[in-house]
Amino acid sequence: MSEKISIMDIDTVSLDDENSQIVIIDQTLLPYETKTIRLTSQKQIWEAIYKLQVRGAPAIGVCAGFGLYLAAKEIAAGTQDYDEFYEAFVKAKDYLDSSRPTAVNLSWALNQLDRVVCANKGKSVPEVLEALHKEAMRIQEEDIRACYKLGEYGLSLLKKGDGLLTHCNAGKLAATRYGMATAPMYLGQEKGYNFHVYCDETRPVLQGARLTAKELMDSGIDTTVICDNMSSSLMKEGKVQAVFVGCDRVAANGDTANKIGTSGVAIIAKHYGVPMYIMAPTSTIDMNTATGADIKIEQRAAEEVTEMWYEKRMAPEGVKVYNPSFDVTDNSLITAIVTEYGIARPPFTESLKKIMEIKAEAMKQE
Amino acid sequence: MSEKISIMDIDTVSLDDENSQIVIIDQTLLPYETKTIRLTSQKQIWEAIYKLQVRGAPAIGVCAGFGLYLAAKEIAAGTQDYDEFYEAFVKAKDYLDSSRPTAVNLSWALNQLDRVVCANKGKSVPEVLEALHKEAMRIQEEDIRACYKLGEYGLSLLKKGDGLLTHCNAGKLAATRYGMATAPMYLGQEKGYNFHVYCDETRPVLQGARLTAKELMDSGIDTTVICDNMSSSLMKEGKVQAVFVGCDRVAANGDTANKIGTSGVAIIAKHYGVPMYIMAPTSTIDMNTATGADIKIEQRAAEEVTEMWYEKRMAPEGVKVYNPSFDVTDNSLITAIVTEYGIARPPFTESLKKIMEIKAEAMKQE
Repeated sequence: MSEKISIMDIDTVSLDDENSQIVIIDQTLLPYETKTIRLTSQKQIWEAIYKLQVRGAPAIGVCAGFGLYLAAKEIAAGTQDYDEFYEAFVKAKDYLDSSRPTAVNLSWALNQLDRVVCANKGKSVPEVLEALHKEAMRIQEEDIRACYKLGEYGLSLLKKGDGLLTHCNAGKLAATRYGMATAPMYLGQEKGYNFHVYCDETRPVLQGARLTAKELMDSGIDTTVICDNMSSSLMKEGKVQAVFVGCDRVAANGDTANKIGTSGVAIIAKHYGVPMYIMAPTSTIDMNTATGADIKIEQRAAEEVTEMWYEKRMAPEGVKVYNPSFDVTDNSLITAIVTEYGIARPPFTESLKKIMEIKAEAMKQE
Repeated sequence: MSEKISIMDIDTVSLDDENSQIVIIDQTLLPYETKTIRLTSQKQIWEAIYKLQVRGAPAIGVCAGFGLYLAAKEIAAGTQDYDEFYEAFVKAKDYLDSSRPTAVNLSWALNQLDRVVCANKGKSVPEVLEALHKEAMRIQEEDIRACYKLGEYGLSLLKKGDGLLTHCNAGKLAATRYGMATAPMYLGQEKGYNFHVYCDETRPVLQGARLTAKELMDSGIDTTVICDNMSSSLMKEGKVQAVFVGCDRVAANGDTANKIGTSGVAIIAKHYGVPMYIMAPTSTIDMNTATGADIKIEQRAAEEVTEMWYEKRMAPEGVKVYNPSFDVTDNSLITAIVTEYGIARPPFTESLKKIMEIKAEAMKQE
């Protein structure tokens, strides 16, 4: 038996620079076992992202930033030549970038580091490396700050005793601290809001049942698990006052790619008049993607659907499986997109642009 | 290894009168093992219904009819007195009636037999028993006939190559032959319609993945399993031309109780303009239930949701679970209710009444 540890006391992703390792909570073992694992090789890091041992857009971004920094550290140990360094750096970047196609934070974090290398052209390789370390740490700190702000803005939309529904895990486990969809829940918990939170179990990989329910319970919030197909019934009974979900990519018009099933929840919420809130750190908003139709959706292995029941198959041998990882929620189904720079409301093409302007202004003043 | 048997060659429920047993396919073992079990005691029959070894409204009705007949047979072996017989008969009836609260076919079948006993008051107990046997067999024959008619009417709504979505199992395994939602699929398959059928896996008990996918594949139909939360994505891609589901109880206004998740599928189908068809043998239509609000919904054990993953829990210890077995689909979300006496369209309060009149007329002429 492993001893009881609260998931809220462990960092989702952290850098152990001294040992050149990334430390993550292995999320595939939850909810039975809260265990950290250490990633050393690039292959281990790639696989940790691919196999969902670390998942959730911001956590993937933070992990990829640390990962590419560690790759750079290894490259820097072998060369003092900038061009040689950069060539190997780009290869490492492309490799990590191939681990998940949909999450914009992955590419975003890797590009942030790439920009740092380019901006430091002419400096010594150790100097470039130092700048990369600083940038990788900054990505993590920014994630913590953004999630806290999401929590404040999200909480402003709620009242005490509200019933909240969430899908998948846009929680603390998907980020460094607070999470996205969970941020107003944790802030509300501290302030005595007594929310009732319903977690979609989120087939096929059950992130809601395994992860969100676990972290919410560890924090003391009143938590109920439902199967994905029960939200209509729950809303009809008047038990849900708002839906909060995270997102993997928000297009410039507000169309939002998130875990498969989100668009269905949004349609059902609209039918019952329940507000649908997308919790989106601005790193998740991709102004270069015009609409949801431009977002590439990953199809995942059939076995996720057919073979996770009592160690036996749960669907007939040879049956076809449709298993998209994400879907796109039409902007017409979204009540508001909450970011760390404020709350965007329809029409999103204008409101998201404004948010990005506020962000640019804030960054100038830093 | 068990030998490969096509599920289409075995009766879902049958009576072995000689041995005083009911033979059923144990549906909790599917899709790995196609195995029949024999039910002898009333407790075994009650448990087979409660534990979903036999499930689906018509199959439950047929099974309950056989079960109550067998109870009567045992009672008749001990008494020749009508009143004594009837007193014990009613107890047996009430016992079987308590196995599932939502399925109207259960009560319906039991009441059919009760009526036969009352109508034969004055006759000898062996004569009453013979009438009960005839009635139990008639219930099964009527199920076969009704499903075939559902198939014909359902097929009239479709064209070759259509993509069809179904939820849960309103299939051959839920009845004696053809099934309800699957009836047009099987009739279409015989006539070269080449349907593409998508099966919601149907959490928590996975009747879609385990049962519907299995029987459809055994019949040679192109079959794809999806998780319950993927139907919005599928409809957005234009892959679904119609939704066919069964039902456990249809109220007089068309509100329909069916497996949890059906109302969500209906809302999503309406959003995408996909027709939603309820396949309802008239035995499932309860004109004494005015609206869906009058239908009692069974809450089932939390463990169905939390403990069916790799033999370990898939949600944290002690988490609350909301696990209703059924939900009610508002009549406003239903395109048509297909019965063995024709297709009812909105307003259902009128069209269902007309269907029942047609039925009454047909029964008079028999």
